[in-house]
Amino acid sequence: MELLKEKIRKEGYVTKDNILMVDSFLNHQMDVEFFNEIGKEFKNRFKDEKIDKILTIEATGIGLGIITAQYFDNIPVVFGKKIDRVSRELDAYKSEVMSFTKKTVYNVVVDKKFIKPGEKILIIDDFLANGCAVFGLMDVVRQSGAEIVGVGIVIEKGFQNGRKYLEEKGVRVESLVVVDKVEGGEVSFK
Amino acid sequence: MELLKEKIRKEGYVTKDNILMVDSFLNHQMDVEFFNEIGKEFKNRFKDEKIDKILTIEATGIGLGIITAQYFDNIPVVFGKKIDRVSRELDAYKSEVMSFTKKTVYNVVVDKKFIKPGEKILIIDDFLANGCAVFGLMDVVRQSGAEIVGVGIVIEKGFQNGRKYLEEKGVRVESLVVVDKVEGGEVSFK
Repeated sequence: MELLKEKIRKEGYVTKDNILMVDSFLNHQMDVEFFNEIGKEFKNRFKDEKIDKILTIEATGIGLGIITAQYFDNIPVVFGKKIDRVSRELDAYKSEVMSFTKKTVYNVVVDKKFIKPGEKILIIDDFLANGCAVFGLMDVVRQSGAEIVGVGIVIEKGFQNGRKYLEEKGVRVESLVVVDKVEGGEVSFK
Repeated sequence: MELLKEKIRKEGYVTKDNILMVDSFLNHQMDVEFFNEIGKEFKNRFKDEKIDKILTIEATGIGLGIITAQYFDNIPVVFGKKIDRVSRELDAYKSEVMSFTKKTVYNVVVDKKFIKPGEKILIIDDFLANGCAVFGLMDVVRQSGAEIVGVGIVIEKGFQNGRKYLEEKGVRVESLVVVDKVEGGEVSFK
């Protein structure tokens, strides 16, 4: 997605620790017009699929999911909650996720009411690196008996293993851009 | 907002602890068409105001903020992050918030880049009860030197003190519905 590359070149920046930051338009301040371009592009990538529901994860995923749903006939969007400790009574699907960036473990939790067996689910998230958040969402879908149609990612870190693991599981991954390298303050794309 | 009352009567439910749950359309599964009705209504309430930016807080606020912004000429949306411990280096406005429901304290954090002195800010959130989350956002705006045009709330708990505190500070509060009472599994509106 050429527009996204331009946006990253213009508004993104790289920290001292070589982390690509896109907080001015994607995950802290949100550019609504641009989110709509992202939604259109996800629709374009998955236009031949029947999709019943979008599943995403808080926080940024919520904005992406809901805007994207507008291009899929306003299908429902469910977001997985990140919860440190899960109380036993909760009637929910849950999966433990390791966050590499924050060096913490959390649970992604989705109430059983909101994903039903046989539903066709599109998973949406902002970043794909090691794929841990997406694995958590996939595990939730697997538990529910629903079906994963694909995974839509805004920015994939092509130098990490997320895509490899997902493709090994036979999951279709559509990333709007793949970052090849982040080095010396510079970003290069695949 | 009559449509919201109907939606709450039809899809909302009350827990054993007398908590109103709206997780099927607002804060876990999201009804995108309905979010658009909310956005239109916020626009209607604040149509005479000049607004530069929407400020909200994760998680549900993100979906509400971004859909609402579509009715305000796609102005930027900034969401406050909920962070347990704030590292000192962060160049951000921060305010400590007490969560009554979860009995915890967190910081709402907004990078200084994203709110500038003089900007006219509309604060949006899903619930107003004691007003703690909104106070945190207001404190952030005050630190930045920006101006609060008003606060837009989807569901106000009229039996708690949030509105009183906000109005004492001279802030305009627009709630789409005011819940008067939650008792014996039933919700009544003001």
